[in-house]
Amino acid sequence: MRLVGVRVRGDDVVRVARLDGDTVTLLAEVNEFWADARSLVAKVAGIREGLRLADGNVTLSTEAVTFVPPVPPSARVICVGLNYRAHAAEGSFEVPEHPTLFGRWTASLSVGGVPVAVPAGEAGLDWEGEVAAYVAEPVRDADPTTALKAVLGYSTFNDLTARRAQKLTSQWTLGKNADRSGPLGPIVTADEVGDLRDGLRVRTRVNGTLVQDGNTRDMIFGVGEVLSLISRTLTLNPGDVVATGTPDGVGYVRTPPWLLQPGDVVEVEIDRLGVLRTPVTATLP
Amino acid sequence: MRLVGVRVRGDDVVRVARLDGDTVTLLAEVNEFWADARSLVAKVAGIREGLRLADGNVTLSTEAVTFVPPVPPSARVICVGLNYRAHAAEGSFEVPEHPTLFGRWTASLSVGGVPVAVPAGEAGLDWEGEVAAYVAEPVRDADPTTALKAVLGYSTFNDLTARRAQKLTSQWTLGKNADRSGPLGPIVTADEVGDLRDGLRVRTRVNGTLVQDGNTRDMIFGVGEVLSLISRTLTLNPGDVVATGTPDGVGYVRTPPWLLQPGDVVEVEIDRLGVLRTPVTATLP
Repeated sequence: MRLVGVRVRGDDVVRVARLDGDTVTLLAEVNEFWADARSLVAKVAGIREGLRLADGNVTLSTEAVTFVPPVPPSARVICVGLNYRAHAAEGSFEVPEHPTLFGRWTASLSVGGVPVAVPAGEAGLDWEGEVAAYVAEPVRDADPTTALKAVLGYSTFNDLTARRAQKLTSQWTLGKNADRSGPLGPIVTADEVGDLRDGLRVRTRVNGTLVQDGNTRDMIFGVGEVLSLISRTLTLNPGDVVATGTPDGVGYVRTPPWLLQPGDVVEVEIDRLGVLRTPVTATLP
Repeated sequence: MRLVGVRVRGDDVVRVARLDGDTVTLLAEVNEFWADARSLVAKVAGIREGLRLADGNVTLSTEAVTFVPPVPPSARVICVGLNYRAHAAEGSFEVPEHPTLFGRWTASLSVGGVPVAVPAGEAGLDWEGEVAAYVAEPVRDADPTTALKAVLGYSTFNDLTARRAQKLTSQWTLGKNADRSGPLGPIVTADEVGDLRDGLRVRTRVNGTLVQDGNTRDMIFGVGEVLSLISRTLTLNPGDVVATGTPDGVGYVRTPPWLLQPGDVVEVEIDRLGVLRTPVTATLP
């Protein structure tokens, strides 16, 4: 099942909906959805595509909605910085002993198709295609196996980075939170994705040219390990997102550096998760 | 004027309220408040303490409410890591050329009086008393003078830190987001605080013993400068919080290290902003 965040035109409420082709079926307001994600997903899992649900869930054309991130405003977006050996190496980082975690706020998230602007003072934006995992239940002080079971599903994610701001000091936070710089694709439930260790190909294209071609089997730290480590310090909440890191092939380490410019289109394609497309613009609309 | 976040007993809605001694006057639901903070504050600025407002704002005893952070769930909490020379030096950091920014999520915020637990695997929690600034209007690509004018007010803040998790990798995020580790005091509006450069004394006490004694006149980067820098990369939203950094005197650099243990009480006292008191417990209630 594919899950998306939507706002019905003319309405400010953010809802989570099931996506089937060119229709969406509304499941619940976003906070209500994450308070009870498992049962809401189970409830609609048996319904065939395109059918209107009997108990009042409304099915709409995707043209009647605006897509938005499917997570509550309070969600933490916890990103693993260096989770592929080749990506650590291309940035001249040592292979880390522990997951290098930095944060994004929901205020910098976006969805596919929405333009992102190059911030003031940046030579461009860099791409980082990767898989994001969504937490369905509270996770606290959990071992990796237990923690992994709390994952509702996965989506494509582009961790678009303002490198100047990222490298201004030792802490990457600012450069990882430019406006609309974190597009998320639809959540695909874990039953349709399987184990990331079995290998999902992760490709990034800029204007059609392949720039990243990695595979999740090469992740240094698995999703369960990362969630487990985090859960020893803080309680993960339903709706929290863990971005699992990008493979090699980013732009700033190239000679000469290659960064996204206004007019460019960047796409992240991941097996079973789909294609996430983001146009780059000069200024925010 | 002092502003607090409250939940009226028996109700889940978070509201911003004016605090006067042992009463609170409800102003608006927290998202509505920040959408229109200036006019809501102006509206009640002329009302004398203890009076019930004529137009329907309800005044309640503080015993009828639970205090919660006065910011929307989507608020970014952007913290300056090294903003006092003596604190940079005690941690063996160079004095930075730019503000070292890291993030907290609202999910790790708290308020005075609420117990905080020592996370698993930590030898204790460290204290970091400091001033937090609250943004009233969107700030984008602004110069320092313009950015400073967007500050609604200031509060006490204790950036309680899980040092093991903070130092696990190059990125501090995890150790800065333990559950309930970011207590905030009431917001005091900027008109009653004045310019931080004129000097507010910042003291931290552990079980009554003075451990930090700094002054905001020693900040390396002023609030306007920090907001301006951030605003070049991302648009600050109403309700966003900038924590201005802690002076020297933290615990982990002492010989032997001194960290907060269950049973300890830590207090941050700042001129004009008041006292923020946090008990430390073994496990989360």
